[in-house]
Amino acid sequence: MPADSLTLDRVRAAAARLDGVAHRTPLLGSATLDSDCGGHVLLKAEPFQRSGSFKFRGAYNRLSQLDDAQRARGVVAYSSGNHGAAVALAARLLGIKAVVVVPANGPAAKLAAIEGYGAQLRTYDPQRESREEVASEIANDRSMTMIRPFDDYEIMAGQGTTGLELAEQAALDDRGGPVLVLVPVGGGGLAAGVSTAVKGLIPGASVIGVEPENASDTSQSLRAGRRISIDEPTTIADGLRARQPGELTFPINARLLDDVVTVPDAAIVEAMRFCFSRLKIVVEPSGAVPLAALRAGVVPAAARTVVVLSGGNVDPAAFAGLVG
Amino acid sequence: MPADSLTLDRVRAAAARLDGVAHRTPLLGSATLDSDCGGHVLLKAEPFQRSGSFKFRGAYNRLSQLDDAQRARGVVAYSSGNHGAAVALAARLLGIKAVVVVPANGPAAKLAAIEGYGAQLRTYDPQRESREEVASEIANDRSMTMIRPFDDYEIMAGQGTTGLELAEQAALDDRGGPVLVLVPVGGGGLAAGVSTAVKGLIPGASVIGVEPENASDTSQSLRAGRRISIDEPTTIADGLRARQPGELTFPINARLLDDVVTVPDAAIVEAMRFCFSRLKIVVEPSGAVPLAALRAGVVPAAARTVVVLSGGNVDPAAFAGLVG
Repeated sequence: MPADSLTLDRVRAAAARLDGVAHRTPLLGSATLDSDCGGHVLLKAEPFQRSGSFKFRGAYNRLSQLDDAQRARGVVAYSSGNHGAAVALAARLLGIKAVVVVPANGPAAKLAAIEGYGAQLRTYDPQRESREEVASEIANDRSMTMIRPFDDYEIMAGQGTTGLELAEQAALDDRGGPVLVLVPVGGGGLAAGVSTAVKGLIPGASVIGVEPENASDTSQSLRAGRRISIDEPTTIADGLRARQPGELTFPINARLLDDVVTVPDAAIVEAMRFCFSRLKIVVEPSGAVPLAALRAGVVPAAARTVVVLSGGNVDPAAFAGLVG
Repeated sequence: MPADSLTLDRVRAAAARLDGVAHRTPLLGSATLDSDCGGHVLLKAEPFQRSGSFKFRGAYNRLSQLDDAQRARGVVAYSSGNHGAAVALAARLLGIKAVVVVPANGPAAKLAAIEGYGAQLRTYDPQRESREEVASEIANDRSMTMIRPFDDYEIMAGQGTTGLELAEQAALDDRGGPVLVLVPVGGGGLAAGVSTAVKGLIPGASVIGVEPENASDTSQSLRAGRRISIDEPTTIADGLRARQPGELTFPINARLLDDVVTVPDAAIVEAMRFCFSRLKIVVEPSGAVPLAALRAGVVPAAARTVVVLSGGNVDPAAFAGLVG
């Protein structure tokens, strides 16, 4: 396959690498959700994925393809959250050294998780330094491989296995009728991977991306027809605070996504509370964004709507402050 | 089968009635838990059961066997929590009218859930009235069938299907070695049902009950060799505040349980926090009690330890106060 594109075959190859390593997370139903939304709704539960989010799929797929020399030198990533934890865990499973560049003021629980998986933390001051530059410097100085959070076809392909699985699982739950998949959009890696897999497997399926209202870089960019950069977003969805769509992810999402819609933070909190009270699943703010669009009526339910709950890494105290 | 005993066949008959109605909840593993506890640990996740706890199994099994005349007159239950919600939901599914007697000062979220399932609430003043008497009076006046929370063989048999499933599921995860099952003990219905099923299916398996330190009526009763009544318990595990073991459950548990141990409330909170942070499952205080015994080292892990997480019905604000 060409090294410079994302294809269904590439997602399938990622799935083979992840087989027996990543969890095949369940696709769950809820009678309450069906009746609240007036359709049949299924939830792809990535909070139950290893490291607590879909990010593990991309990180492991990428790291498992490093050659021996690259493995010996190690990897570097920048992230205060799920990508950092995913790279740290994948590296540990593969016996690779990892350095993760994190903000000095990052959430303690997430930094502890990254360190708990055995990665070395390198803090930076977000007021004075750029995390990309700090990470690049480490990568250059120590000849380590930089693992980007989304703008990398192997990361996208690994994340796309979420879409491969949900398409297979949704086919088993065959009530017929059109399929609509809702997926969160930050840098756009998950959306690109999932839409590639879902549209490759289910002819006629729609895929809609969902962003927080204050982090609408992708919807603005789609309207403008080019990548727009926005000010530092202020949403509670800390995993979706991208300022600009990815260079590689944007053309894929522009071609494959049927729409990108936005939701206010209040709708995200309502969706988190629903997951807590009715589904008994812990979902972080970024992970609840697509469900928020459905529950707030921003997107109407289809005959079969599959919602990606993308992760569950949220500090108990932060969660309590939002949902309690 | 005799109407006055609990047998494996009776639990199997309950499973047939629940087939396609109750969820077959997953048996989940956690690499972190294995390494923390030094054994292989599996979790039976009843927070994902309909109505949010194992109680649905017993309630539906009992209600589905009412005859037409009994169904037409309806049922009455007393409970401020999971039994009330379970009876309300089972009654709605079967088209039966339900009255649930609840304390006037009961947790708003639980009362709302009972009402949300369509049951009629009848409040009583816990300072002045006995809930059993209030419920008996309604049952007599309106010729309704009283659905007791645990001291009823069909309730126990339905709850025992939790044990039937976990024994079947644990057999699939065959690492060999002894099986130990940990189950919470309140009135003793779940413990009686689970131990009947597990010991019927897995020769040599051990079943240990776990109580909150301040609600240790069953462990005290076992030591005394007779049913001891204790003062109003003050534990956070609101579902396990029984003052006395059941008349029917106690002899079964005295015969089948290998031990009953106790845990302090602090260990229960730690187990809830672990479920939240690592497993992404919402577990209520009563539901986390057996995991607390394992994590606090009160019970050592066996080669294969199955922990029943019995329910997930906890108010977001109450949860935040405990875990946040």
